[in-house]
Amino acid sequence: MLLLQCSDQKGVIAAVAQLLFGFGCNIVSSDQFTDASSGMFFQRLEFDYSEIVIGAGNYAVLERAIAELANRYSMSWKIAYGGNIKKLAILVSKMDHCLYDLLIRVKSGELRCKIPVIISNHPDLKPVADMFGVEFRCLPIATKGDKAAQEAEIEKIMEEHCIDTVVLARYMQIFSPEFCNKHWQHTINIHHSFLPAFEGAKPYHRAHDRGVKIIGATAHFATGELDAGPIIEQAITRITHRDDVPDMIRKGRDLERLVLARAVRWHLDDRVLVYNNKTIVFED
Amino acid sequence: MLLLQCSDQKGVIAAVAQLLFGFGCNIVSSDQFTDASSGMFFQRLEFDYSEIVIGAGNYAVLERAIAELANRYSMSWKIAYGGNIKKLAILVSKMDHCLYDLLIRVKSGELRCKIPVIISNHPDLKPVADMFGVEFRCLPIATKGDKAAQEAEIEKIMEEHCIDTVVLARYMQIFSPEFCNKHWQHTINIHHSFLPAFEGAKPYHRAHDRGVKIIGATAHFATGELDAGPIIEQAITRITHRDDVPDMIRKGRDLERLVLARAVRWHLDDRVLVYNNKTIVFED
Amino acid sequence: MLLLQCSDQKGVIAAVAQLLFGFGCNIVSSDQFTDASSGMFFQRLEFDYSEIVIGAGNYAVLERAIAELANRYSMSWKIAYGGNIKKLAILVSKMDHCLYDLLIRVKSGELRCKIPVIISNHPDLKPVADMFGVEFRCLPIATKGDKAAQEAEIEKIMEEHCIDTVVLARYMQIFSPEFCNKHWQHTINIHHSFLPAFEGAKPYHRAHDRGVKIIGATAHFATGELDAGPIIEQAITRITHRDDVPDMIRKGRDLERLVLARAVRWHLDDRVLVYNNKTIVFED
Amino acid sequence: MLLLQCSDQKGVIAAVAQLLFGFGCNIVSSDQFTDASSGMFFQRLEFDYSEIVIGAGNYAVLERAIAELANRYSMSWKIAYGGNIKKLAILVSKMDHCLYDLLIRVKSGELRCKIPVIISNHPDLKPVADMFGVEFRCLPIATKGDKAAQEAEIEKIMEEHCIDTVVLARYMQIFSPEFCNKHWQHTINIHHSFLPAFEGAKPYHRAHDRGVKIIGATAHFATGELDAGPIIEQAITRITHRDDVPDMIRKGRDLERLVLARAVRWHLDDRVLVYNNKTIVFED
Repeated sequence: MLLLQCSDQKGVIAAVAQLLFGFGCNIVSSDQFTDASSGMFFQRLEFDYSEIVIGAGNYAVLERAIAELANRYSMSWKIAYGGNIKKLAILVSKMDHCLYDLLIRVKSGELRCKIPVIISNHPDLKPVADMFGVEFRCLPIATKGDKAAQEAEIEKIMEEHCIDTVVLARYMQIFSPEFCNKHWQHTINIHHSFLPAFEGAKPYHRAHDRGVKIIGATAHFATGELDAGPIIEQAITRITHRDDVPDMIRKGRDLERLVLARAVRWHLDDRVLVYNNKTIVFED
Repeated sequence: MLLLQCSDQKGVIAAVAQLLFGFGCNIVSSDQFTDASSGMFFQRLEFDYSEIVIGAGNYAVLERAIAELANRYSMSWKIAYGGNIKKLAILVSKMDHCLYDLLIRVKSGELRCKIPVIISNHPDLKPVADMFGVEFRCLPIATKGDKAAQEAEIEKIMEEHCIDTVVLARYMQIFSPEFCNKHWQHTINIHHSFLPAFEGAKPYHRAHDRGVKIIGATAHFATGELDAGPIIEQAITRITHRDDVPDMIRKGRDLERLVLARAVRWHLDDRVLVYNNKTIVFED
Repeated sequence: MLLLQCSDQKGVIAAVAQLLFGFGCNIVSSDQFTDASSGMFFQRLEFDYSEIVIGAGNYAVLERAIAELANRYSMSWKIAYGGNIKKLAILVSKMDHCLYDLLIRVKSGELRCKIPVIISNHPDLKPVADMFGVEFRCLPIATKGDKAAQEAEIEKIMEEHCIDTVVLARYMQIFSPEFCNKHWQHTINIHHSFLPAFEGAKPYHRAHDRGVKIIGATAHFATGELDAGPIIEQAITRITHRDDVPDMIRKGRDLERLVLARAVRWHLDDRVLVYNNKTIVFED
Repeated sequence: MLLLQCSDQKGVIAAVAQLLFGFGCNIVSSDQFTDASSGMFFQRLEFDYSEIVIGAGNYAVLERAIAELANRYSMSWKIAYGGNIKKLAILVSKMDHCLYDLLIRVKSGELRCKIPVIISNHPDLKPVADMFGVEFRCLPIATKGDKAAQEAEIEKIMEEHCIDTVVLARYMQIFSPEFCNKHWQHTINIHHSFLPAFEGAKPYHRAHDRGVKIIGATAHFATGELDAGPIIEQAITRITHRDDVPDMIRKGRDLERLVLARAVRWHLDDRVLVYNNKTIVFED
């Protein structure tokens, strides 16, 4: 899998296709997008390298050729091989629905990743981690000052387990801007409203007060600015005047699960590119 | 059709049902709602009065009985007879999609109302009015000071045509708070976002900037506070990174049409009650 | 909760409301439906009996009064008290997604019921039952002749555990017409297509062959005629030419889960009435 | 715009991209699909030929080069230039909602085509054609034998007006297999059910009888086998037990309009390819 990003210019597509063909790779799928307003070009290519003309496993030559091409077109690029499996840390607080959902999808093979560790600021969900045989680390935040210490601890656990991706599965703590700035590109949060409506706390209560006829959920990268990171996926469901806040919370759980699972799946498959605080999602 | 609203108390339902039964009316449909937080009770009854025991057409006796009952339970109420047809004024500016949609639905009988007049601050849509044989009144606003005069003119036209309901079908002027406070309960606006996201001007542009994955439309009563009136209906459609602003505008038109038509339909059938800046919609 | 069904006639609503008022019960919610084609009337009432005028717990008097009323109006009726919790048996084969989903929703209290036993024709899902501490009974069908014996065994287990409701959560066996005729009113099946399209085996394969742009799932009562029982709930999702059968199966799992959970929830809350092989669903 | 179709083989993408680059064309968008089961490769390229290196307007050289390439890869191909506008004939019977919708979308420029003629087997919709200044041809079918004559007449009108595309906008006649076999690739029909459910007559009535909880609409190419042609687009809406047949018809109208408009738009933009009685739709 190859992800490319450069300013739009004639010949890029031909050059990339020619290079892969020269190496004996077959392009299995290709998706591309040119953003007219910024003049940027984005491409995602999946290719079969089983008949690569250089020695199998010796991808350095291929990568060197891509790097040269990238240099010529001022292109940023990223390559990923099918054998590599990402490692996910799930952060939770007390609600278990997204956690269960991710664990089941990983177990069934629907999400291609490993979950070496679940981290929480509360002990409540340890039994769920136990059911699925995943290590559970409880890092409570007793006082405000503990926050920096807790974030340092989280980073230590991430290093320990070679974590690629952090999923905030209804984790009810706000990270410091420092933590977000460092990690946002691999940190996915689920927010329980159709952003930008109802950013911040208690969105279902505020949705009820405003009398909306739809509620939603949004998966986004967790940048330093609260609930303002690049949106990966959103979904909504209809409600009526009959739905009070607990009904919204119940119906919202199904949305949160689905939206988060889709965003995580696309991120794991390197289908999400970020530009100008927006995402390009090459859906499967 | 009978609409009721009172604080929740034992025996109301029985008393109303008994009264209608006593008059020989058959309850065809009944929908009710008790708002737990405010303790308010709302009911909409459709009943067949063809076999009413008092003289046909002499509904004063029935209404007096209802008034007495309403007094006993501190109830506000409203009755509407099938033969009465509401009169709609449509206000537009330059976009024709909602206007066409409403005219076609009225013509086909899907919306039960008459449209005696279309009012606009621009002359552009006169040909559409002509196609459907509806009077078109152009009230341009040349300078800021003209606004009050224009609103007075609109009110004059409304009186002239005995207008019950005003539909702002992409009317790109903001009414004065005075006008709204007087008319909001029969003035329906369509806003091209899923409120409360993107209140005010240019919502599609702002949706594009924010990188949302859904766009929406909202029909609401036009109160004095911009885009903050009681929401009647909302709908959304998915978009992707490929959709630029003109795509959103195009896809949004289909939403705006549908959402506005549904809201108007429910309002015409007296299916919408307002309480606490929220609507209770007894859908058909 | 009181469910009523009778031919439409004047005064029924008043009589029922008056009766409950007379007993000091407050009607909390009421939903009703008159089927114009058959002339049948259906009503579901939720009422608060905490201030009932007869001795608390002594509901025999109330039920006798309802029975008399029912007799007068040739009404069939059913009453259910909040304290009673239904007992569910889940039948599965090898797929675990619906099973997990139901177990999690019961555990979280979203579905108000108990699951005393999970029955399967395969041993594969025992570990899932174990995770949630539910008894697992494996009743394999080795030869065709075993089927009657297996059904007898299932009925024995149902009696043993006082089972009210059977949920076929992707159970890949077809029950005999005898079994269905006896149990269909409390047996809910999930079928992985938008019925009546693709009844029977391998619906996703056939959907792929037909080139549909939507796939669906349907929860229905399992009558003697395959996939032809009363439909309780349906949902769909969009697909494109890119989705092959495994993609459909994956996307379909999310539909199956949601649709089955909703149908089970409404059935548990006595919100589903059947008439003429169709359901009336008084949604919450 | 270039549409390609060939068996999947290494180097095709590179060869096409290289060819366009050689001619100084910039690929604006490219969408491709490899059907794993049939081993077929499909591609749609939009390219900017304003800086083409051969003389402007002299596209013969470009087309010859593409033809040679196509020959090498056993490729079928089709090229379309932005300036060419397709010509549509709309066939209707008595229902006007799809007709209005298409006329309005063409008038607003949303659908890029011309409508030289509307053909009907009834005179009812002549006033609608008149409103939009489109020629209306009434070809009634008095007796069964008239059908062949009517189809011959339709073909004559098509030739007369250089019609590219026929849209059956709720045209209630079934064409002969001969007519369909000749024209299906440019004949789009709207069927008022989510096919393959309820093929043939009166789908809403049958949906009501079956008690479905969703209704749908399907746009498809009109092949010789009734309602069995390649599906281009489908959409659905939820219904409840409260919706009788007239309600379904009303709600279905909005579906039919939307689904047909989308299918026509994609067809006009050469976004629809057919293979194995299925469509590949390169959506915009």
